[in-house]
Amino acid sequence: MWLDCAANCGAAPLDPDQPRHLCSCGSPLLARYDLEALARTWSRATLGEREPTLWRYREVLPPADRGAPVSLGEGFTPLVHAPRLGAALGMDRLYVKDESANPTNSFKARGLSVAVTRARDLGARTLVVPSAGNAANALAAYAAQAGLAARVFMPRDVKPPFIRECELYGAHVTLVDGLITDAGRLAAAQAAEAGWYDVSTLREPYRIEGKKTMAYELAEQLDWEWPDWLIYPTGGGTGIVGMWKAFEELEQLGWMPAGRRPSLVTVQAAGCAPIVRAFEAGAARAAPWADARTVADGLRVPRAIGDFLILRALRDSGGAAVAVDDDAMIAAMREMGRLEGISAAPEGGATLCALRRLLERGVIRRTERVVLFNTGGALKYLELLQS
Amino acid sequence: MWLDCAANCGAAPLDPDQPRHLCSCGSPLLARYDLEALARTWSRATLGEREPTLWRYREVLPPADRGAPVSLGEGFTPLVHAPRLGAALGMDRLYVKDESANPTNSFKARGLSVAVTRARDLGARTLVVPSAGNAANALAAYAAQAGLAARVFMPRDVKPPFIRECELYGAHVTLVDGLITDAGRLAAAQAAEAGWYDVSTLREPYRIEGKKTMAYELAEQLDWEWPDWLIYPTGGGTGIVGMWKAFEELEQLGWMPAGRRPSLVTVQAAGCAPIVRAFEAGAARAAPWADARTVADGLRVPRAIGDFLILRALRDSGGAAVAVDDDAMIAAMREMGRLEGISAAPEGGATLCALRRLLERGVIRRTERVVLFNTGGALKYLELLQS
Repeated sequence: MWLDCAANCGAAPLDPDQPRHLCSCGSPLLARYDLEALARTWSRATLGEREPTLWRYREVLPPADRGAPVSLGEGFTPLVHAPRLGAALGMDRLYVKDESANPTNSFKARGLSVAVTRARDLGARTLVVPSAGNAANALAAYAAQAGLAARVFMPRDVKPPFIRECELYGAHVTLVDGLITDAGRLAAAQAAEAGWYDVSTLREPYRIEGKKTMAYELAEQLDWEWPDWLIYPTGGGTGIVGMWKAFEELEQLGWMPAGRRPSLVTVQAAGCAPIVRAFEAGAARAAPWADARTVADGLRVPRAIGDFLILRALRDSGGAAVAVDDDAMIAAMREMGRLEGISAAPEGGATLCALRRLLERGVIRRTERVVLFNTGGALKYLELLQS
Repeated sequence: MWLDCAANCGAAPLDPDQPRHLCSCGSPLLARYDLEALARTWSRATLGEREPTLWRYREVLPPADRGAPVSLGEGFTPLVHAPRLGAALGMDRLYVKDESANPTNSFKARGLSVAVTRARDLGARTLVVPSAGNAANALAAYAAQAGLAARVFMPRDVKPPFIRECELYGAHVTLVDGLITDAGRLAAAQAAEAGWYDVSTLREPYRIEGKKTMAYELAEQLDWEWPDWLIYPTGGGTGIVGMWKAFEELEQLGWMPAGRRPSLVTVQAAGCAPIVRAFEAGAARAAPWADARTVADGLRVPRAIGDFLILRALRDSGGAAVAVDDDAMIAAMREMGRLEGISAAPEGGATLCALRRLLERGVIRRTERVVLFNTGGALKYLELLQS
């Protein structure tokens, strides 16, 4: 494995055996593997016998050099067929990838399991992250599992369950006036001073490696046939960028045919939709969103360092970008609960709203196979459901 | 599959093709399988290729006759090695079976997945359950997934997240003055009148079938070697009874050697410990506990219909029964979080308290292999963690 600049700035590949954050050009770094060699030696038939966590794809993950991966059972989450929800939309091939089954109740567990494993192996002692909530919970849990210290920085108005859960795992919590970007600035400044290891998404190269496994699982769970559309709630966008990377890897491994990738849909909140705005404007990067507001904490991300990678993946996949209202997300949480028994965060609800919109517009056809990503459960958002 | 009286009252085996609740003698019914035939035709080597849910053991579960099982991805939960928690106790073979990874965040998902599947196949339309909280959430989710109606009866002072989660899944919630036993009386009365299908634990024979899969998983996850001790928080006790049943089945299948079963430990709350009291008194049944009080809702069960089965399993396994204080449970939740990144309900915390007690007493030796059952996550109990 080695690390390459995600913007192809021309910098030489970097050795991963020491802590790495951004490329010297300021872009994220991406992990690369000798996929040609793997294509010869690694068969997808080996997967059947492996444990049902994301570490079943260990050949395309950073190595765990010093002991077992830091794992709480993350990944290989259920892909739930949703017949009643589908029927309500006139579809019969609708699925929900239920990421609430992960430790700490969200998809953030994936990236942090991999990043904390790597940080431990590189000798880090104190890990730091800015977060809208779920990433803080996941870092806190995996740092505890690794015996490392965790410092998390969250917006002061984060919902109380996120704070309580961090404290449960013994993390040091700092509440910051402002948004996740403000938390990020403070976290980076304190990290630099104290020598903490920064696991901000895409500012270190391994969280994306954990996230990309969602695409590997999808391929495996659908018996190596891609669906037509993936609808994904997008804050920092690591999932979109990671899955796009996985599509390419899966083709290079010869596990999936080239030229048939799913189209990717980004969903954002109407009150914070920088990627949607840039997508519609045909821009290569997204300007920061002013006065970001939404109940979906994970979508309250006014600026994403990987914006150009997200936008490229959306366009190259023939995808779309949709902004949805908070009220509609909450109604969709209830709909997913009532019709399918799925516990959805507002971010998960947002994917259903986006699907409905794209069906109405004729962008998605009712006969197509669609996967909604429920990136977290409802339990930390119950205050939204009080009638 | 057929149904036998759990008390061996001499009643003839019952046909499972119609709704069944208790035996005519008032005892629970247990599902039985032709294990001799299965021993010849079913090998544990077949498991490797199966999906990571409890339905991988379908040969020893009631059949799903009309369509796929009602599933949200329940079971095959992580068995987490707990080295730091172990070190704090001088042990190196301590494990946590993390049932918080189930849908609806608790072990109750297992029984309800199986019971709702069977209820659907038997033509039920409205399902009803009395619950301290988690069983209501699980019934609500699985009924939604099956397209059936759910009516849940809970004590009026149940923690608000349990009510909100039921509502999310569209269940009809009735709050009852008193305890789960009072809720049970009201639920049974209304069910009889309205013709609802009662899924009270051990009053219908299939929830225990879902619960027993915890033992199948343990055996498989530990590569077919039993641990020495299982420590289990006990309210209605379906897990204890179910696992004891599974031990016997696994021996009859020839998958596990006879005569080496783990010893079972029941943990209850000091404020509601009917099984512990009966165990210590050498009684065959447990008298109802007056004035039951504990923050661990799942342990606030003053009387269990399967009391005689629990007590028999504890004694036959060379086990123990321990009552622990609420404050100690809450401290143990924090300890499991801080040292291992595990999100534990107070019931899960209680297992750690019991382990500590039994180590001190010399009942469990520090070299033995011990599994704690974390029956649910902390997320619905965060109010207990406010400092």
